[in-house]
Amino acid sequence: MYQFLSNGTVTSVKGFKAAGIHCGIKKRKKDLALIYSETSCTAAGTFTLNKVQAAPIQVSKEIIKNKKTVRAVLVNSGNANACTGEQGTKDALAAQEYCAKLLQVTQSEVIVSSTGVIGQAMPMDKMLHGIKMITGRLTDDGGLDAAEAILTTDLVMKSWAVEVSLSSGKVTLGGICKGSGMIMPNMATMLGFITTDAAIEHPLIQELLSEAVNKSFNRISVDGDTSTNDMVTLMANGVSGIQIVKGTSDEALFFEALQALCIEMAKSIVRDGEGASKLVTVHVKNAKSENDACTIAQSIVNSPLVKTAIHGCDANWGRIISAAGKSGAEFNPDLTSIYFDELPILLPNYQAVIDEEKALSILEKDEFTITVDLGDGQCDSTWWTCDFSQAYIKINANYRT
Amino acid sequence: MYQFLSNGTVTSVKGFKAAGIHCGIKKRKKDLALIYSETSCTAAGTFTLNKVQAAPIQVSKEIIKNKKTVRAVLVNSGNANACTGEQGTKDALAAQEYCAKLLQVTQSEVIVSSTGVIGQAMPMDKMLHGIKMITGRLTDDGGLDAAEAILTTDLVMKSWAVEVSLSSGKVTLGGICKGSGMIMPNMATMLGFITTDAAIEHPLIQELLSEAVNKSFNRISVDGDTSTNDMVTLMANGVSGIQIVKGTSDEALFFEALQALCIEMAKSIVRDGEGASKLVTVHVKNAKSENDACTIAQSIVNSPLVKTAIHGCDANWGRIISAAGKSGAEFNPDLTSIYFDELPILLPNYQAVIDEEKALSILEKDEFTITVDLGDGQCDSTWWTCDFSQAYIKINANYRT
Repeated sequence: MYQFLSNGTVTSVKGFKAAGIHCGIKKRKKDLALIYSETSCTAAGTFTLNKVQAAPIQVSKEIIKNKKTVRAVLVNSGNANACTGEQGTKDALAAQEYCAKLLQVTQSEVIVSSTGVIGQAMPMDKMLHGIKMITGRLTDDGGLDAAEAILTTDLVMKSWAVEVSLSSGKVTLGGICKGSGMIMPNMATMLGFITTDAAIEHPLIQELLSEAVNKSFNRISVDGDTSTNDMVTLMANGVSGIQIVKGTSDEALFFEALQALCIEMAKSIVRDGEGASKLVTVHVKNAKSENDACTIAQSIVNSPLVKTAIHGCDANWGRIISAAGKSGAEFNPDLTSIYFDELPILLPNYQAVIDEEKALSILEKDEFTITVDLGDGQCDSTWWTCDFSQAYIKINANYRT
Repeated sequence: MYQFLSNGTVTSVKGFKAAGIHCGIKKRKKDLALIYSETSCTAAGTFTLNKVQAAPIQVSKEIIKNKKTVRAVLVNSGNANACTGEQGTKDALAAQEYCAKLLQVTQSEVIVSSTGVIGQAMPMDKMLHGIKMITGRLTDDGGLDAAEAILTTDLVMKSWAVEVSLSSGKVTLGGICKGSGMIMPNMATMLGFITTDAAIEHPLIQELLSEAVNKSFNRISVDGDTSTNDMVTLMANGVSGIQIVKGTSDEALFFEALQALCIEMAKSIVRDGEGASKLVTVHVKNAKSENDACTIAQSIVNSPLVKTAIHGCDANWGRIISAAGKSGAEFNPDLTSIYFDELPILLPNYQAVIDEEKALSILEKDEFTITVDLGDGQCDSTWWTCDFSQAYIKINANYRT
């Protein structure tokens, strides 16, 4: 069994230090974060599938691909170092090299990550000066500062830790993330950094992360866009002395905790989506295949018409079933039912049984679940989305990413 | 050569009459349209690919599939007759039957079409009373009334006619359409009804319409959603005495006129998209394959981040290339250039050459073109989109489709 810790963060995990500072990439807010492990870590990562990949993505993917050990993650906000050509790659490597030198680790042991404006050169003087400062400020409780420093248009900090009891003792997992705009499934869809004091070898560490990301970060939607910079990493330093072994009940327990952490992180991103005022869980069940369930849920969570109806507290099941219909997935609309929380809205053969007053009281809540029961199989899929508000338009018409 | 006629409409074409009236499905506005040919027509149609298809779509698809002759199109707005189950089909057939009876034609000669609220039973008493009224009001210049009666959240009427000189004389094409929300490629994406006095046999009539729709109505985006009710039909009554024969230069000239008409209709829908203030042409060129060009253009025209940037007059080429990158199409971002009208914004190897002042003067126009030159092939694709405004959210949070 796992449990969430209060004020949990990446430094709630033994052997990890962190810091978050302002170095001048942004005008005033914190813009540089560093997560550091006192000992060598195995690491896993998932990266954006966008064909246009920021320089730090290219650099960090190589580390993960080659199953290198890792000691630190350096993250800046305010500048994405994306669409910056050869100079961008040089800059990412220079930051990585300098950070490694000051931490006295190998260059390839530093994962690098950036988020912010696309297409502008990194202000390397500020960046290098920042690296010099931040490497001197690592502390055992710096996780929340790091969580703050990776934000862009986010309104709230996103930080968690979870403890799980295994057969030979407890291990801890911590995670920080940022999201806001440009959130859409397929792949990491934002930045997330997870630490654990369990020991996990390759290839298991990557399998665990990929599976957890697939059912959490890859199932959220704010606006259907996918960024050039998205990544989620997991660092395991083994300081707990507990090894996660494939096929054991400990592995299942650890995965359960990792997935719960990832889902909490992902939901926090949706809840804080640009202009969002509601978190809506979309649960598609009794589909013929998991793929059909996924495709239909994805189409619903990405439909602007569904998202604006949710914003307007309109019990518009027509838009929901229409979004399912355009998905291309196999299902029979005649067998389909729709529920808001436990309240039936539509029953098979298009029986609209909607009680407008009760539906409204659910739609007005900050969080609720839309269940689409296809009545035609046994597979299901759960996704998360937010409403589409006028504030989203305002933020994105005026902010240059 | 073709030319557009002033105040052109479906009744600008010889042998067609039309009418548009208010029968009470909507509170005050016109809500019932009828287009009628004095003689028998061949007909073609393209229909929504949504798995959830409104009753009139099912009824009308059968007519086109079986290559039946056609005499009329009956269209109501205000109620989509979608997600209405068996009763919906009965209602669509009853309307078709009654209309055919009053027009003294065969039941299968009446195409039926609906647009409006989903999931509510058709008010058949009003509908049948309306059919009785409208069949008595057909006139030679009723096309504009019909154009008005098919609108829902549209702000302007959409009606055109084009004349084309062929080897043995002139033929005319007329078209009316409605769009607004729920506009997205794949398939007809809205309602469009085209008439012509040319004679065109099967299967050529369907080939010509499908090809023209594919490069017009299927290449527009307002909000990425696809309706349950979309259809475009072409009726050819042959009254001009001029036959379009496959493989002739007349066929090419006729197709050119048909395509120009469809593009004008499609663009008018984007221009009047819910909350839209700009019409933007997205031209992707020098792609390796037409499919790559299409996929990239589609991803750009559907990106909420691109559409909000356009709304905010932000020369945000990063969002454009990022939207291209997430499309999944094959291209090399390093070779890509971006232009606003003739102004270079991005040159290969991520050279941002943007002149902010000149870019702004283009972005502030009502209409402009974004050209994405992939520099890697010879294929191209042209699409149309509008900006995403706060008004879009407002309209769709408060209107129940």
